[in-house]
Amino acid sequence: MAYNLKSIAQALNGSLVGDGDIVIHSIASFLNAKDGQIAYVSGKNVNKLTTCCASALVIPDNIVCDFLIPVIKVKNPRLAFVHLVGMFQDKIESNGKITSSMIDVSSKLGYCIQIDDGTVIKEGVSIGDHTVIGSNSFIGKNVFIGENCFIHPNVTISKDTVIGNNVIIHSGSVIGSDGFGYEWDGERHVKIPHVGNIVIFDDVEIGANTTIDRGTIDSTIIGKGTKIDNLVQIGHNVQIGEHCLIVATSGIAGSTTIGNHVTLAGGCGITGHVSIGDHSIILARTCVGKDLPPKSVVSGIYARPHKEQLKELAVLSRLPRTIKEINKKLEVLLKK
Amino acid sequence: MAYNLKSIAQALNGSLVGDGDIVIHSIASFLNAKDGQIAYVSGKNVNKLTTCCASALVIPDNIVCDFLIPVIKVKNPRLAFVHLVGMFQDKIESNGKITSSMIDVSSKLGYCIQIDDGTVIKEGVSIGDHTVIGSNSFIGKNVFIGENCFIHPNVTISKDTVIGNNVIIHSGSVIGSDGFGYEWDGERHVKIPHVGNIVIFDDVEIGANTTIDRGTIDSTIIGKGTKIDNLVQIGHNVQIGEHCLIVATSGIAGSTTIGNHVTLAGGCGITGHVSIGDHSIILARTCVGKDLPPKSVVSGIYARPHKEQLKELAVLSRLPRTIKEINKKLEVLLKK
Amino acid sequence: MAYNLKSIAQALNGSLVGDGDIVIHSIASFLNAKDGQIAYVSGKNVNKLTTCCASALVIPDNIVCDFLIPVIKVKNPRLAFVHLVGMFQDKIESNGKITSSMIDVSSKLGYCIQIDDGTVIKEGVSIGDHTVIGSNSFIGKNVFIGENCFIHPNVTISKDTVIGNNVIIHSGSVIGSDGFGYEWDGERHVKIPHVGNIVIFDDVEIGANTTIDRGTIDSTIIGKGTKIDNLVQIGHNVQIGEHCLIVATSGIAGSTTIGNHVTLAGGCGITGHVSIGDHSIILARTCVGKDLPPKSVVSGIYARPHKEQLKELAVLSRLPRTIKEINKKLEVLLKK
Repeated sequence: MAYNLKSIAQALNGSLVGDGDIVIHSIASFLNAKDGQIAYVSGKNVNKLTTCCASALVIPDNIVCDFLIPVIKVKNPRLAFVHLVGMFQDKIESNGKITSSMIDVSSKLGYCIQIDDGTVIKEGVSIGDHTVIGSNSFIGKNVFIGENCFIHPNVTISKDTVIGNNVIIHSGSVIGSDGFGYEWDGERHVKIPHVGNIVIFDDVEIGANTTIDRGTIDSTIIGKGTKIDNLVQIGHNVQIGEHCLIVATSGIAGSTTIGNHVTLAGGCGITGHVSIGDHSIILARTCVGKDLPPKSVVSGIYARPHKEQLKELAVLSRLPRTIKEINKKLEVLLKK
Repeated sequence: MAYNLKSIAQALNGSLVGDGDIVIHSIASFLNAKDGQIAYVSGKNVNKLTTCCASALVIPDNIVCDFLIPVIKVKNPRLAFVHLVGMFQDKIESNGKITSSMIDVSSKLGYCIQIDDGTVIKEGVSIGDHTVIGSNSFIGKNVFIGENCFIHPNVTISKDTVIGNNVIIHSGSVIGSDGFGYEWDGERHVKIPHVGNIVIFDDVEIGANTTIDRGTIDSTIIGKGTKIDNLVQIGHNVQIGEHCLIVATSGIAGSTTIGNHVTLAGGCGITGHVSIGDHSIILARTCVGKDLPPKSVVSGIYARPHKEQLKELAVLSRLPRTIKEINKKLEVLLKK
Repeated sequence: MAYNLKSIAQALNGSLVGDGDIVIHSIASFLNAKDGQIAYVSGKNVNKLTTCCASALVIPDNIVCDFLIPVIKVKNPRLAFVHLVGMFQDKIESNGKITSSMIDVSSKLGYCIQIDDGTVIKEGVSIGDHTVIGSNSFIGKNVFIGENCFIHPNVTISKDTVIGNNVIIHSGSVIGSDGFGYEWDGERHVKIPHVGNIVIFDDVEIGANTTIDRGTIDSTIIGKGTKIDNLVQIGHNVQIGEHCLIVATSGIAGSTTIGNHVTLAGGCGITGHVSIGDHSIILARTCVGKDLPPKSVVSGIYARPHKEQLKELAVLSRLPRTIKEINKKLEVLLKK
């Protein structure tokens, strides 16, 4: 694959400054780019650009700056980069081959799907057109998977899970383990059966080694367009809205409801049975123990509004000095 | 499966108020229940019941309340629900079929066991009667698994692990990885070999993607009836007592001892080489760095008694105001 | 296997006090050792030794103490123990057998390698001499694995990963999942493609269920001799230096750089795009949000120098009392 700069500028809907006949063979980061490669620069990295050896750059259109090499100016270089990678990348798509020998005869397999070696498909499974299932995965009874999904190797999807279209699930993730629920009967923890399932809507992506528990009776729900990172725990009966971002090593306890467009940064913990309003931002490592209204921005181990948190931190960091000053004044006064 | 209300009331040892001939076809949550279904209500949810469309309800016997639909009053509706699900659920039990082709001939397989496609059983393994091992799991050399266990798909159980009866291990969990131990020799971290094993007693349940490291020389031990959630890390030589609950994303470092009936809520961290007394409760996200006596209730990033923690938090949240007040008084005094 | 004490003392380069003809059949911990076994004692455990029933002990050479049983004095008993286990342990080495039937014909397999049942090897893979790959693992397209590596069962190594010599990867780990990167286009989170790879240098060990994301365009890098524990998350483009220790349940966000000889204790979180200097120690559960100079020792939820942190904690724990005292003095003064 190779394109000249003129055609790349057209594809990115950008304006070219420089020689449009230069041929680009691949993409690279601006730090490592060499002759024949194109890189992108976001606004904040422009001052690091002194030594870039790329043949061309994709840059934000609001940068006023002389470059010695051709540039393509675009509104959003990161989005442009996404398209650029698509131009040069090997297409990740189904090869249409089913090489696993462990597929139950009752399963309904769509058009042009790929199921790799070592994957087990149990009774009553339905898989939509163009979906890929990598090696050594497990798809339990009566699972429904939509079209254009990509299930990576070593994934476990337990029975009755329903998955929409264009869903990506990375390796090692477990969809549909039992929720952690017991009732003490005086002698032992009696397991509460989990007969609900999981519903994952269109365009969801789930990272590696993440776990999502099935509902107790109803469904655990992941809304359309929500993206979940690696090593995230999502408890039974949790309902997550649309277009949320849940960053790595976060945990959401059972029966909690999360609105639309909510961001959980890395390592957050949300307790069970609470409700997080739409468009909230939970900063990294925050612990949320109660309901939050829409558009909350919270931080800290007791999830307080981030502005208050910062004020309290300022007071705290001054505290040793503050107490010394107070005691000094008191001494003066007491000596009088 | 269908039962009339009279027979359900008998099975749950509850008292029926209403028409005992009504036929119930399945269970549901009280929010989503429809005609022909039965739901349960715990005490705290009674006030949410205004719109329940179930044909009958299981309720606590201490509720004084008029219902328009038949109810079965029981002492503990959650426990009753556990039995109820058992009545309607497809039995999760061994189908007695061994479909994997990768089982070492030296293994001892009990009566009516199920080993699914793609699972590897190595030399000298022993598996008890009625135990189920899901697809694509790995059971290492000389592992002993008792009766009535359920090992879900994609589980790894490393060599020499000993597992009792009625143990459940969810997908993606790794039982018997090496402990994280190295000795710096001046040039590099030299790996400390781990030749111990893991012993898991009866009635233990282990969640998805949890990791338990083998002992260095002796055993890592999980006591009878203890339940471990998803994404939990348990270090080498750890000894956990009976009937503990370890909630998701917690970590217990090497050589720590945990008593009986201890609860670790979500996201806790216990340092290595400490001892937690029986019946202690470690609240969510607590970090424990030293021994705790029995019946401790601790919280916070330095694991202090929860009552003290709450007092300190109250002082802290008032602090900016407190300091302002003090300074005001000081000003008044200094002006005198 | 059995050795007399004289030959063990020679092998450990230690000095024997006692009968060199005593025969040792195995190793044990000093708490559980019995007749015919040898145990080791580190300095801090000497006072626990009252009831040791071993036939001999390996002890630090600086202990002045009368033992009733033979001892071998060495400089570093833990290092000596490592060698001792090596003498008694079944060798963990390749059996030279390839029993998996799912190996692409284009792969280049070295001398005396072992690939167990159920493992899938895709196109263009290269595996060095004496390397072992356990059961049900997945090795993606064009992966390069060096010599003497040990890949445990159920590991996922995605395409283009490069792994050096003597690398150990424990079960359930996922090497090469996509980084968590999206660009909001006004309607949805558009996935940023990840076309970079992962490079793991010699002598690295990676624990169970750990996840390492591939680089966006360049490589995610794990330096020589670095050891990573279980359930660790390492984001895209992260660069970790040589001989680091990353303890369980820690997370490192994307594009962060970690120097050489850095220790992250358990449960740490490092934000993205920061740099941690060589020889730094990040204490347990610390959250790092900014660059740290070399030799930093930090703790707390805002990663402050550990000494300052301890001072502030002391001030805080005295705070309720301090404020009471201040208010008492103020009252006295105001009454005057």
